Amino acid sequence: MRSCYTGQVSTDQLDQVVTLFGWVHRRRDHGGVIFIDLRDREGLAQVVCDPDRAQMFQVAERVRNEFCVRITGKVRRRPEGTENPNIRSGQIEVLCHELEILNASVTPPFQLDDENLSETTRLTHRVLDLRRPAMQKNLMLRYRVAMEVRKYLDALGFVDIETPMLTKSTPEGARDYLVPSRVNAGQFFALPQSPQLFKQLLMVAGFDRYYQITKCFRDEDLRADRQPEFTQIDCETSFLSETEIRAIFEDMIRTVFRNAIGEELPAPFPQMPYAEAMRLYGSDKPDLRVKLEFTELTDAMKDVDFKVFSGPANAEGGRVVALRVPGGAEMTRSEIDGYTQFVGIYGAKGLAWIKVNDAGKGREGLQSPIVKNLHDAAIAAVLERTGAQNGDLVFFGADKAKVVNDAIGALRVKIGHSDFGRRNGLFDDHWKPLWVVDFPMFEYDEENARWVAVHHPFTAPKDGHEDLMETDPGRCVAKAYDMVLNGWEIGGGSVRIHREAVQSKVFGALKIGPEEARAKFGFLLDALQYGAPPHGGIAFGLDRIVTMMAGADSIRDVIAFPKTQRAQCLLTQAPSPVDEKQLRELHIRLRQVEAPKA
Amino acid sequence: MRSCYTGQVSTDQLDQVVTLFGWVHRRRDHGGVIFIDLRDREGLAQVVCDPDRAQMFQVAERVRNEFCVRITGKVRRRPEGTENPNIRSGQIEVLCHELEILNASVTPPFQLDDENLSETTRLTHRVLDLRRPAMQKNLMLRYRVAMEVRKYLDALGFVDIETPMLTKSTPEGARDYLVPSRVNAGQFFALPQSPQLFKQLLMVAGFDRYYQITKCFRDEDLRADRQPEFTQIDCETSFLSETEIRAIFEDMIRTVFRNAIGEELPAPFPQMPYAEAMRLYGSDKPDLRVKLEFTELTDAMKDVDFKVFSGPANAEGGRVVALRVPGGAEMTRSEIDGYTQFVGIYGAKGLAWIKVNDAGKGREGLQSPIVKNLHDAAIAAVLERTGAQNGDLVFFGADKAKVVNDAIGALRVKIGHSDFGRRNGLFDDHWKPLWVVDFPMFEYDEENARWVAVHHPFTAPKDGHEDLMETDPGRCVAKAYDMVLNGWEIGGGSVRIHREAVQSKVFGALKIGPEEARAKFGFLLDALQYGAPPHGGIAFGLDRIVTMMAGADSIRDVIAFPKTQRAQCLLTQAPSPVDEKQLRELHIRLRQVEAPKA
Repeated sequence: MRSCYTGQVSTDQLDQVVTLFGWVHRRRDHGGVIFIDLRDREGLAQVVCDPDRAQMFQVAERVRNEFCVRITGKVRRRPEGTENPNIRSGQIEVLCHELEILNASVTPPFQLDDENLSETTRLTHRVLDLRRPAMQKNLMLRYRVAMEVRKYLDALGFVDIETPMLTKSTPEGARDYLVPSRVNAGQFFALPQSPQLFKQLLMVAGFDRYYQITKCFRDEDLRADRQPEFTQIDCETSFLSETEIRAIFEDMIRTVFRNAIGEELPAPFPQMPYAEAMRLYGSDKPDLRVKLEFTELTDAMKDVDFKVFSGPANAEGGRVVALRVPGGAEMTRSEIDGYTQFVGIYGAKGLAWIKVNDAGKGREGLQSPIVKNLHDAAIAAVLERTGAQNGDLVFFGADKAKVVNDAIGALRVKIGHSDFGRRNGLFDDHWKPLWVVDFPMFEYDEENARWVAVHHPFTAPKDGHEDLMETDPGRCVAKAYDMVLNGWEIGGGSVRIHREAVQSKVFGALKIGPEEARAKFGFLLDALQYGAPPHGGIAFGLDRIVTMMAGADSIRDVIAFPKTQRAQCLLTQAPSPVDEKQLRELHIRLRQVEAPKA
Repeated sequence: MRSCYTGQVSTDQLDQVVTLFGWVHRRRDHGGVIFIDLRDREGLAQVVCDPDRAQMFQVAERVRNEFCVRITGKVRRRPEGTENPNIRSGQIEVLCHELEILNASVTPPFQLDDENLSETTRLTHRVLDLRRPAMQKNLMLRYRVAMEVRKYLDALGFVDIETPMLTKSTPEGARDYLVPSRVNAGQFFALPQSPQLFKQLLMVAGFDRYYQITKCFRDEDLRADRQPEFTQIDCETSFLSETEIRAIFEDMIRTVFRNAIGEELPAPFPQMPYAEAMRLYGSDKPDLRVKLEFTELTDAMKDVDFKVFSGPANAEGGRVVALRVPGGAEMTRSEIDGYTQFVGIYGAKGLAWIKVNDAGKGREGLQSPIVKNLHDAAIAAVLERTGAQNGDLVFFGADKAKVVNDAIGALRVKIGHSDFGRRNGLFDDHWKPLWVVDFPMFEYDEENARWVAVHHPFTAPKDGHEDLMETDPGRCVAKAYDMVLNGWEIGGGSVRIHREAVQSKVFGALKIGPEEARAKFGFLLDALQYGAPPHGGIAFGLDRIVTMMAGADSIRDVIAFPKTQRAQCLLTQAPSPVDEKQLRELHIRLRQVEAPKA
């Protein structure tokens, strides 16, 4: 029927008669001739409708933007000077013989090439929004990425096995989406937050290598890079070490980048222990494109008069760091004020700074509201440890470690990405992958006064760290690893516990008693008793990976039908009220919703 | 690490030292030597543990069934007479040098090769059940089928695009699984019964060719071949005719059968209009392996004295048919009584029959309780139209057409599959695919006194049948088609409506008023206005296809973690009660559940 996609007509078909299907992207009347830019998913082709052919021309006169048409015509070279080198069909045009309107279109609510549409408009009219070449490209890229992943894993003997969507609620981690059961009154399924336990069970069942590209669900308040349902490339393998597992998946990501977008990632990816990432960047997913690092000053500020520094320096869990910004002395006061406001978002109560005008002059060469509060040794430590040069600016963070890490970590990225940062060579615009390794097993949850798992409770401790789980949980290191790319965590995984005794010990450290452990995870503990193999794996966020590859602003730009930040689908109006009969069948009723306050 | 999978060791590695991982399938002590059948997902290998190597032998003595072990050893030829031609490694054995227990196993609750396990036992201990070679094979086959589908569709330019799992409830068709929204109090998402509308929207958005292998959900009471969540190979394409669409997907299925299990399906698949399938087999998914057909007798029985026949023959919507069973005269009275009971399941009030002892003698040559009630012309019609020969048996069905079709249709299959049927050449044990085409658009729902869509309300009528939707809905034929294989509907699809006016007309015929149509399907009606392309597609049931290929008894045998017929997961105990806090966050509460009656 169709000779080829519209976007693929080229000089290969010169003088041939072709049949094309597509949409009228633009229609121009020019010197009595009608030009139609015909569009399909592969691109555009120029169709020339000449008044010679009266019947066809009458149809062409009726055609408007977004009409769906079939054309038959002869491929010819465009007149010299009218070629378009940017598109595949740019050397040719199609002289139209026949034109059929397959379906008319009312006038669209916006121009498809309008770059300034609000997200509300785009999501409400998502079908038209998806017709835009950028969105077509994004979703085709998404498919290519998924397919490349499949090809890579297939060749290594990984097997895609589907795990259930209707599964058990285990209120650990994020909030579950629940599904009331009709047959089992008063009981609920949960949608999976990840297939974690099922993939481990598949390893115990002997499938050896598993993967799945699957939807996961978290009922959390949404941020820019989160959706209620998101897609995970979920992988697990038996009988391999942490290093061997990482090698496979690093090569997978490298291969996918190469084959899907022709980009070469560095080989091998650098590795950095979690502790070092926190020390240097205040983040376990540092954006290594930004060439700024923290300088540790906690020990140097213990005895300064300046309470803003000495307080956190002496407090348990406090931290004082500097962030040297080469060339930063050129920043204006209002720029610095802007950054002070910015770090406030992350809980920092202020943002101390020193401009280094003349490092050789010591105290005299510095411009800063805080220098007077620091003794000479402290100033020397700042200059020496940061290596600050004339013309640099040094920012300071001093607070609880978490606040310092979050605030100065975010500041680091903010400055690096700014015009200032790019102008001053603080931003290296290349792919910067990184393995962050040696995560702690546990972190202390102050609010609930207990240890919680950093990764998840099924992660194995480093060899020799088993006893630390009881004696000193904070020092226990896990066989866990994250793959970070340009500041985004794109994958996370671990070697899992394959011995029931170790798993019980972890539950113990997490204050999950034997009864609770059995009620929630009995099936896992049982499975581990039957010769469970050593195993481990990783899960990648497909949405994020494709967003980065596409250079898109949001993961919503690589998802066909995403939800808003209020978890709504503006296209179909989901969620929506349902019939009372449906609720009755599910043995639930609505709670009284308070009337909105007047 | 591993030299190869255990099941893949062969004479290729003769005299080589190999490292293998796996599970102890069987362990035999024979003349002071320990033999271990080591198992992994690819099969078994025989490992010989000789007491010469004392340290290794001590470990071998501790090893029990289902222990997970690593072995290193030398591949050698098995002694003559001990080869096993049934397995790949059957010519060799591995002389064990090193044996490491990676994980011990408690004694399993059953032998893995026990063929008589109850389904409850299997689903409760699913992880062990999945270790059984048959289950390993089934799930590996399932993967191979899915991957072959992807390869085929990828080559044709089909693009896998993910559609939402949290979507809108549209209480048409089956019952929805609902998901309460936390953010939008009192509102609910529904899990998709199929991505039907989203794939149509993707066509309108210009993606041209779409597929997805995805979970669908129906909260229905479960039968043997149903699960609450099931997997659909969902496909849609633009700009192709009904014939072209069928050709693609027929070839896809043929290719998948060839590549996944090496079976060749007939080419082309035969086609049969719906009306003919009902006439000959009383079913829209006839099992063509069974070489029995209905004979229409309604018109011949209008004036017989026998009310059991003349009643339905004269009633509106009644039907009288014969089913000739060649060689059936040998059936005993108790066999016939068994079939009489059987058709009762389908609502038949009895099962009339005639044994043909000597057809030449007319009435005298027949043995039957009903012959005396039939006049000569009726008997002549039976003998002539059925073509009954000496030694045949003729069964009769007379009732409302639906009862006759269901009962005699089931009887036809039952006899065909019986030992009698196989012995008498009534069962042709080959793959018998079939396209059933020309489905009616609507069928009358007596209970609710209205027309309902046979396929779904988005199916296009045959060209020229548009007006019948208003004037005579029962005669309106759809561009709908089912792919049937050996009596199972494995796929169903249609050309869709791509014009808003036609879609509104269908909603009209279904008594879905304009307001209701807008509330439920406004986004579709809107989309159709913007130059929607002609499009159509099909959806296949992956679970069913794999079940048939595997020769499994139930779709539960090709699903890793299926639900029981009470929609429960016996492994994880889902569904389960949830915390009051979770319900409160979702703005719902449980209804009072009535105490079970004493």
